[in-house]
Amino acid sequence: MTAVAAPLSPEELSLIDRYWRAANYLSVGQIYLMNNPLLREPLKAEHIKPRLLGHWGTTPGLNFIYAHLNRIITARDLDIIYMCGPGHGGPGMVANTYLEGIYSEIYPEVPETADGLQRLFKQFSFPGGIPSHAAPETPGSIHEGGELGYALVHAFGAAFDNPELIVACVVGDGEAETGPLAASWHSNKFLNPARDGAVLPILHLNGYKIANPTILGRTSDEDLRHLFEGYGYEPFFVEGHEPASMHRQMAATFEQVFDRIRSIQSAVREGNAPAACPRWPMIVLRSPKGWTGPKEVDGKKVEGFWRAHQVPVSNCREDDGHRKILEDWMRSYDPEDLFDQQGKLKAELKALAPRGARRMGANPHANGGLLRKELRVPPIGDYAIEIDDRGSKQVQSTEILGHYLRDTLKLNADEKNFRIFGPDETESNRLGSVFEVTDRVWMEHIEDYDVHLARDGRVMEVLSEHLCQGWLEGYLLTGRHGLFSCYEAFIHIVDSMFNQHAKWLKVSRELEWRKPISSLNYLLTSHVWRQDHNGFSHQDPGFVDLVANKRADIVRIYLPPDANTLLWVGDHCLQTYDRINVIVAGKQPESQWLTMDEAIAHCKAGAGIWDWASYEDNTIAPDVIMACAGDVPTMETLAAVMLLHAAIPDLKIRTVNVVDLLALQDPEQHPHGLDHHEFDRIFTTDKPVIFAYHGYPYLIHRLTYRRTNHQNIHVRGFIEEGTTTTPFDMTVLNELDRYHLALEAISRVPGLAEKVPDVVEALEAKLVEHHAYVRQHGEDMPEVKDWRWRR
Amino acid sequence: MTAVAAPLSPEELSLIDRYWRAANYLSVGQIYLMNNPLLREPLKAEHIKPRLLGHWGTTPGLNFIYAHLNRIITARDLDIIYMCGPGHGGPGMVANTYLEGIYSEIYPEVPETADGLQRLFKQFSFPGGIPSHAAPETPGSIHEGGELGYALVHAFGAAFDNPELIVACVVGDGEAETGPLAASWHSNKFLNPARDGAVLPILHLNGYKIANPTILGRTSDEDLRHLFEGYGYEPFFVEGHEPASMHRQMAATFEQVFDRIRSIQSAVREGNAPAACPRWPMIVLRSPKGWTGPKEVDGKKVEGFWRAHQVPVSNCREDDGHRKILEDWMRSYDPEDLFDQQGKLKAELKALAPRGARRMGANPHANGGLLRKELRVPPIGDYAIEIDDRGSKQVQSTEILGHYLRDTLKLNADEKNFRIFGPDETESNRLGSVFEVTDRVWMEHIEDYDVHLARDGRVMEVLSEHLCQGWLEGYLLTGRHGLFSCYEAFIHIVDSMFNQHAKWLKVSRELEWRKPISSLNYLLTSHVWRQDHNGFSHQDPGFVDLVANKRADIVRIYLPPDANTLLWVGDHCLQTYDRINVIVAGKQPESQWLTMDEAIAHCKAGAGIWDWASYEDNTIAPDVIMACAGDVPTMETLAAVMLLHAAIPDLKIRTVNVVDLLALQDPEQHPHGLDHHEFDRIFTTDKPVIFAYHGYPYLIHRLTYRRTNHQNIHVRGFIEEGTTTTPFDMTVLNELDRYHLALEAISRVPGLAEKVPDVVEALEAKLVEHHAYVRQHGEDMPEVKDWRWRR
Repeated sequence: MTAVAAPLSPEELSLIDRYWRAANYLSVGQIYLMNNPLLREPLKAEHIKPRLLGHWGTTPGLNFIYAHLNRIITARDLDIIYMCGPGHGGPGMVANTYLEGIYSEIYPEVPETADGLQRLFKQFSFPGGIPSHAAPETPGSIHEGGELGYALVHAFGAAFDNPELIVACVVGDGEAETGPLAASWHSNKFLNPARDGAVLPILHLNGYKIANPTILGRTSDEDLRHLFEGYGYEPFFVEGHEPASMHRQMAATFEQVFDRIRSIQSAVREGNAPAACPRWPMIVLRSPKGWTGPKEVDGKKVEGFWRAHQVPVSNCREDDGHRKILEDWMRSYDPEDLFDQQGKLKAELKALAPRGARRMGANPHANGGLLRKELRVPPIGDYAIEIDDRGSKQVQSTEILGHYLRDTLKLNADEKNFRIFGPDETESNRLGSVFEVTDRVWMEHIEDYDVHLARDGRVMEVLSEHLCQGWLEGYLLTGRHGLFSCYEAFIHIVDSMFNQHAKWLKVSRELEWRKPISSLNYLLTSHVWRQDHNGFSHQDPGFVDLVANKRADIVRIYLPPDANTLLWVGDHCLQTYDRINVIVAGKQPESQWLTMDEAIAHCKAGAGIWDWASYEDNTIAPDVIMACAGDVPTMETLAAVMLLHAAIPDLKIRTVNVVDLLALQDPEQHPHGLDHHEFDRIFTTDKPVIFAYHGYPYLIHRLTYRRTNHQNIHVRGFIEEGTTTTPFDMTVLNELDRYHLALEAISRVPGLAEKVPDVVEALEAKLVEHHAYVRQHGEDMPEVKDWRWRR
Repeated sequence: MTAVAAPLSPEELSLIDRYWRAANYLSVGQIYLMNNPLLREPLKAEHIKPRLLGHWGTTPGLNFIYAHLNRIITARDLDIIYMCGPGHGGPGMVANTYLEGIYSEIYPEVPETADGLQRLFKQFSFPGGIPSHAAPETPGSIHEGGELGYALVHAFGAAFDNPELIVACVVGDGEAETGPLAASWHSNKFLNPARDGAVLPILHLNGYKIANPTILGRTSDEDLRHLFEGYGYEPFFVEGHEPASMHRQMAATFEQVFDRIRSIQSAVREGNAPAACPRWPMIVLRSPKGWTGPKEVDGKKVEGFWRAHQVPVSNCREDDGHRKILEDWMRSYDPEDLFDQQGKLKAELKALAPRGARRMGANPHANGGLLRKELRVPPIGDYAIEIDDRGSKQVQSTEILGHYLRDTLKLNADEKNFRIFGPDETESNRLGSVFEVTDRVWMEHIEDYDVHLARDGRVMEVLSEHLCQGWLEGYLLTGRHGLFSCYEAFIHIVDSMFNQHAKWLKVSRELEWRKPISSLNYLLTSHVWRQDHNGFSHQDPGFVDLVANKRADIVRIYLPPDANTLLWVGDHCLQTYDRINVIVAGKQPESQWLTMDEAIAHCKAGAGIWDWASYEDNTIAPDVIMACAGDVPTMETLAAVMLLHAAIPDLKIRTVNVVDLLALQDPEQHPHGLDHHEFDRIFTTDKPVIFAYHGYPYLIHRLTYRRTNHQNIHVRGFIEEGTTTTPFDMTVLNELDRYHLALEAISRVPGLAEKVPDVVEALEAKLVEHHAYVRQHGEDMPEVKDWRWRR
């Protein structure tokens, strides 16, 4: 499987080597220079940046791959994007997109001239300039790679439903040690050669991380071959350090692997092979870290060692010897052989870059908003639950959303631009009706008794939240739509991926040339209050706390209390862009409250008074506000209101529900924040508010700390008490149940507790009764299990 | 590599099969029955629990492995613990520890009698009973497995420095799809056969998850063999469903693999082989999901399919047909052949279980607190920084801690019970002096130019936060000590592992028989304010927000402002137990403030007034309080105080520093919370507080919302503005710099801004000057770069 053909003529070899040298030269220049970009005068201290920031080690390898991809794109007119796993090799990505010309098209202030070169160099890692990584600012990138591990999963996400696209994905050997990357290799079991594009993984072993060798860098070729065969690939090896030999090997190997990709695809597409799991090619590229850089500095090994990781020679301003090393190094690329008098890449080299949108820096797939088509959605009214008698009907809200999703899948079937992702839980999360119109993707063997598995399913299930999240990110970033449904507790597994995506969106929104992409939508079901069966490890509502830390213009958090509100929220989120929407909704049968019209009005307002559940005289302020956010807290609050009204008929109770959580926040802090006047109207300025909240109570305090009545807001939520028990017992353990809420209300209304000691006693007795009942019978008391709202 | 030997005599085979049936019987009983445990009367509806919760699918396989491990333990007197990756197979773990007798020793209310059996069954997944997973309540478990992915990494953590221990680790094929598990296989490159124990991974392929086949379950044996050879193992296969054949295969395979383990270890230990990376055995066990359970229910395939995952036949109370299936199924194990008249396991079966601490449920390694020895630490005074002139000395605080850690490693070298973990960043985080006394563990090839790599290093570096965290958890849970140093932003990668460990600690602290283990200590350095060189993706201080959601008795958060406070905090954390301590401290040169004595007093108090940095008249309240938490915020606050005092000499300024963040919280909410009197003394009840905080500002509001003066606390922190720039520019972008702080102070003191318009103008001009300077020169203005505290 080692390449033998030698497709490069000596002339081609010389040209491609010069192109590579040009990219290397520009990379070094970005790390070091703020002036004298073409070394037209001897290098002086003042030409060198005061702070040297950047990563050289991986960059020459990235440039080498880039040059060879250019060659094959041009030769075969291929549609390729470059996924740069070692995103800290940003200088290389910038250099190559500059050589292609796209950089100057996007950033005309950095033209293809000597002046432009000076600006290109100076701006890199410089205040007011560009970041050191392959960030949103970098043309052709949909992957920063700052946090390592997601290159390959992004690559597969980009390739799904893009049959003509090939994603060349460079995986660094550092990154290859991460968990998400180690699992990502298995993505080949979910890629359909008939309808999807291809991913070409290039494992770039330069042997070292920051200060250590890498695991795979020190693994024998034999074990590597076994490992990747075991993962289901056909590995090809390109190894060495002598440029000419490496160019020949790489060119020959590319010929082979792109032949292989095409033949796999055409065999399936022309019906000559089953659409099963083919053995896709992948490349193992071993090249020295800091290749072509200084061999030694101060007597210490640099090239081919971890000392080449960042800035290989560091004291170039003060130390003449270091500066000499730098100058010799840069001149070794022979800039005069590369750039003309005006500082432009010489024409014969420029000719090597692909043209127009074939340039990897200009490929529209890497600026997915350019390709994005609006999602077609059915009218939500078609799925609305009829509300005859509030709270009497028990419905699984996510099941209703499932009907809507089924039809959304149908409406977009031709466009092939909508998928649903989840860790083996679509059915469990009651979205099963999507299987009336599609299946789960499965490329390994399918047994005749398997259920809803197919080669062309649009539901992607794998027991890895990392893969679900990463595939979806790649899918969205290339202009498509999707939904990730997940157990609430385990979405924390991708906290850090969420962070990185939020950061990407924040920056890309600020770039005019980056077009909006569809929002990343989470449906968190099997939530904390309905994981009574799986126990404490499955009970964690903290993801929204993480989300609330992000920029207000990026994030939204919805807690729809019933099916109609969930329909509005789901429909709304799927049509937004450049955001991250989190929807938390239960999958168990639950009471239904709002008609569709009411739901629409309520969701648009974000929060509001539920008159039908309030007992107040509109001429004066209520005695107490019973507020709630989340489906279970809503049910418990309404039950508490019923208990309170029955026991204390003259108590003025206002019931408030919050569906758009960030409506609570100051409008200066979040665009959805209720204005202060409206907030004060709903929550009053001085009455006690008993707030039953779905998650950790602190979040409500944090969101409302600027509100007039904040000091009277008393929040009940999850206080980290959990185990395997009954659903109602979960609320009791955390003091979020109706009895605790009613007791809290009584205690907070001045003078009330003294007036109604019998009511207090009766409520406390209920808690004792519950405790005994549930431990004897193993299920909840009929009065809580079959509770219905009555007015 | 398939087993051929047949070590089981027919008698042995019959006994082990009966033992397995007993475990299976008890497992089914726990899921279904609340009465009639020995089926001594026909099964009636009222014998069956009202809610059927539990996971059958994986359980028979877990029981099968358990029985065969018992056999080999007894035969060879081995020291083995059982790591149950599919922790939802809790009924199996409970059943086996009950059969061993240890369950009744720990829980005498569940004796080895018919009554005990009834209680054993009823308590499972029952309110007030035990959870459905292998939770802390389960003897012999250090791994709940609720969130999948960490079994193997826990197993390796347990094996390190335990040369006689063998960790048998069952990995489910669902779990095997996760990222952390996929990376964990590479842990073999960090296990030294001379000084560490062994891990025997048993990949249990039952083929299905909740509603899907598994990737590895549908992978061919050939690919599996390649995959695990590629990972560096020698795979053995045990496959089938016919019990007798499976028993024979398993027994023979165990003989082989335990021979192999012993021969690898003895070759190295006796000096006959190099302590390199041996090819450890692992087992692939293919057995049907729900093995021995109902073949079909309601005409649908159950055994050998995903329908067996949880409760295979569900309507046993109402449906006579279902109940009949259950009764037939349970009777198929022939309980009369297994339990005597008193309901006790028959003597000839009981004899198969190991004795005393060899029982896997009683192995002290699975209750690490029993084995834990106090860590020896040197006196922190030996490392203290002398403070002659406050703020004049620039020191890398983590470097000082590094000296302390070096000597801690030395002091505990003989005990071999302390390790340092981190993703390739020990040196980068300035803890490099530990390499004076130890090295990084590295079992692959070592080159002569490699630096500080050795077979027996005590520093564990791998580019996977998941592996670092999981190894450390396993190491702590088996009674040892450790520290995890990590970039602040990327600790979010293990948010969910942190959650799970916090949950484990919360529950295990409530169990008298579980002895305290050492705290999990994080040192988060390369923090948000000093990731100016890596850019936005590396800038995230939100981990502490997650931590603050956990139970107050479990978590601590420290933000030491200098080296002496860091020394106290580090020393303190290393000596605590059953907690999670988070320390955030910079690695760059920074000003030093407190003498060791002052540092000790300050850290013990948690927060306090820095008189030496205050300008106030003790007879009246100050005009403004400048508070800070974190090293960079402290520096900026002191600089703001200096600016304010110079410009407005009669302004009464109090400077407050918070080192123990949770001291801010109400003492009712956190044991470290300052009492309200003391809080009001420090922060006053009505003066403006400008609080410069290291992370997201909301956390301070959330922690202080119950404090008297909360409405006057104005927090500056990270507001999600970042890129590659200078360190000071990072603070300016987020308005946490000295100029913004001083401006905020002026604006908050009533009437002050109108009095000093020139000061306001001058401060604003400084921001403009900074902006221009940094963009021109690429580094910070000398006056901020070389700023020193002067009084």
